[in-house]
Amino acid sequence: MNVEIITIGDELLIGQVVDTNSAWMGQKLGDEGFHVIWRTTVGDEEQDMLAAFDAAMKRAQVILVTGGLGPTKDDITRKTLCRYFDCGIHFSEEVYQNIETMFARKGFVMNELTRDQAMVPDKCTVIQNQAGTAPCTWFERDGKVLVSMPGVPSEMKWLMTNEILPRLKSKFRQDLFIKHQTCWISGYTESALAIKLTEFEEGLPSFVKLAYLPQPGIIRLRLSAYASTEAEAEQAISEQKAKLHTLLEGNILVEEDKPVEELIGEKLRSLHVMMGTAESCTGGHIAGMITSHPGSSDYFAGGVVSYCNEVKHKVLGVSVDDLEKYGAVSRQVVEQMALGAMRTLDCDCSIATSGIAGPGGGSPEKPVGTVWIAAAYKDKIVSGCYHFGTVREQNIQRSANMALLMLLHLLKE
Amino acid sequence: MNVEIITIGDELLIGQVVDTNSAWMGQKLGDEGFHVIWRTTVGDEEQDMLAAFDAAMKRAQVILVTGGLGPTKDDITRKTLCRYFDCGIHFSEEVYQNIETMFARKGFVMNELTRDQAMVPDKCTVIQNQAGTAPCTWFERDGKVLVSMPGVPSEMKWLMTNEILPRLKSKFRQDLFIKHQTCWISGYTESALAIKLTEFEEGLPSFVKLAYLPQPGIIRLRLSAYASTEAEAEQAISEQKAKLHTLLEGNILVEEDKPVEELIGEKLRSLHVMMGTAESCTGGHIAGMITSHPGSSDYFAGGVVSYCNEVKHKVLGVSVDDLEKYGAVSRQVVEQMALGAMRTLDCDCSIATSGIAGPGGGSPEKPVGTVWIAAAYKDKIVSGCYHFGTVREQNIQRSANMALLMLLHLLKE
Repeated sequence: MNVEIITIGDELLIGQVVDTNSAWMGQKLGDEGFHVIWRTTVGDEEQDMLAAFDAAMKRAQVILVTGGLGPTKDDITRKTLCRYFDCGIHFSEEVYQNIETMFARKGFVMNELTRDQAMVPDKCTVIQNQAGTAPCTWFERDGKVLVSMPGVPSEMKWLMTNEILPRLKSKFRQDLFIKHQTCWISGYTESALAIKLTEFEEGLPSFVKLAYLPQPGIIRLRLSAYASTEAEAEQAISEQKAKLHTLLEGNILVEEDKPVEELIGEKLRSLHVMMGTAESCTGGHIAGMITSHPGSSDYFAGGVVSYCNEVKHKVLGVSVDDLEKYGAVSRQVVEQMALGAMRTLDCDCSIATSGIAGPGGGSPEKPVGTVWIAAAYKDKIVSGCYHFGTVREQNIQRSANMALLMLLHLLKE
Repeated sequence: MNVEIITIGDELLIGQVVDTNSAWMGQKLGDEGFHVIWRTTVGDEEQDMLAAFDAAMKRAQVILVTGGLGPTKDDITRKTLCRYFDCGIHFSEEVYQNIETMFARKGFVMNELTRDQAMVPDKCTVIQNQAGTAPCTWFERDGKVLVSMPGVPSEMKWLMTNEILPRLKSKFRQDLFIKHQTCWISGYTESALAIKLTEFEEGLPSFVKLAYLPQPGIIRLRLSAYASTEAEAEQAISEQKAKLHTLLEGNILVEEDKPVEELIGEKLRSLHVMMGTAESCTGGHIAGMITSHPGSSDYFAGGVVSYCNEVKHKVLGVSVDDLEKYGAVSRQVVEQMALGAMRTLDCDCSIATSGIAGPGGGSPEKPVGTVWIAAAYKDKIVSGCYHFGTVREQNIQRSANMALLMLLHLLKE
């Protein structure tokens, strides 16, 4: 079943807000066998919205629209939907009561604009939004469905999970099942890997696609099977995965398409082990990645962001002499940071980073992008020096990913 | 000048990758007076790309395309561009040399697929990519421009900044100047603010738009002026801003559309003051936000992520009795965390967070979303309790924003 996602809002076009909704929706839809074929973003302009609705209704069976449902004048999606589906608008007592309940819970006072939120188009099914005040509306025409949801991520997610996905599944008999399998490959450049896999790729059945998503030090290979039954899709994936194993054995790092910090969490939980972090150039990003997952307090004791040398010494116990002799970006310092984290935070394993994220701070011997990383687990410690690049944001992200991978390896040994 | 952005890649549609490129491009284009009117995302399918190019060439004067330029089989943008512009492809010695240089720098070995990266369409201007191996191509037809860039964010950013924006500015005489002004308003719900601003909104000239971007505890109001000269746009904004001041005086928190951690950085720098963090429920996100900005080592000493109570006590010196008596999520504990951070990290100001991010860990007295936040500066300390919501990701983000705002206030007092 083909789906198009339409996101509405000037804030998206001018770049004030990054659209994270579409990726989340794409994942959830794919898990249920719906195929997102197109995404469109338009501003808060009636003509553009009408054109987007029209084009989407020609391309897809299901159109999911987010945004433009607030109580203020700049939000015109509802009015435009009435126009597109050629219908009037009316007051819904049920929606009004939902808004009243939401407001009472937060101690807010109702006013005439919140009352306007209870106005709903005539030709649609109204779906109550228990995560916010703007209701969701479900339109049907010629066997196609168009759903309008708020753009606030938590409201969209609540509606998708509890209302829209279940309704779509019951309405549309699935005719296409999609399975993805991701393998993280190390030790190859993208083109060298593609050459290695030439025969494999040529031998793929036509309904299986192979994609390369390169990251520094790693390439995520994605196999996607599109089949008419779930079993067929699964079988195709497992056959091709077995072939990849034979071809790439020692170079397959991870076979799950989960963030590496989630894989670490699972491993730590199974080992009944607590971890800690000592971060310099990653500045708290690693701790932030780990704690973004629910339940991380089961295995994450805490972290130290030792941005200045005084904190490296005072809190983590790094030797002042070594800081002077080798510099903060060195094997000696990063290993002492990792060991200091285990001591200070009373934990069984740790990772540490120290590098030059840029754009300033580089030197001929240690240019921007030079990062030392260490991982420690009980009495074992490993460390390595990496040269990432010149872009600060990427250096931080790459260092964090590499540090987490290093610990994952160590825990798996 | 109207612009459409087209992003290409199955990984975007299935949600494996979040599109951050479009927002970045939207901002930079807006700063230069280009107006992004539409965004399209399609997969690695020739028919969809052709349809997207065609629709965009009808709507916009400038079409910026990212993605699908890798050396592997799944990437077909270049081939599809040849088809769309009805031209052949040839080997470019100049591009090949650039690739060789890039590879030599990284110690990679060239192969036949990297050589293929030097194949370029006949009917275009080739623009060298100094941040990667895939060249950028610039097509023109009927006075319109279509530019194809790699989807790797660092490569796209390098090309936009150094090549595309300068070329677009020199080619197109600007006929539209856009200025935005954002004010952060506290103390209103979205609808209450809209009612307060009814007359103001009705009195706005037709070329000035007002948008509401609500966040918990704060609404970002955005004024956007679209005028034929820069001076006119600026004047309109400054007039309307003055009116907002009169109407909302004490409720305007911030008037710059910068991330709050950047505003704090500027303030700390001007005060010659170092800050530190003590994070529980935000788990390193605040430190990560601060250190994502270049030069943050000038004012950020470091942080402690005290995820478990032992770290709160041992590293930050929070009283064990108070942890037991009041619980970790309490005024007593969060204030001791803030003071402990100043002591442990030897700094002049700090922020601390302790709360229940969820989904687990709530109780009737302290439901999920309850967060205590404290900010300390020299001998002053403030703290407050917030009730955010039930979504973990949002609770972390909101707590981090609120904590940073609290410190910004304290520093401005």
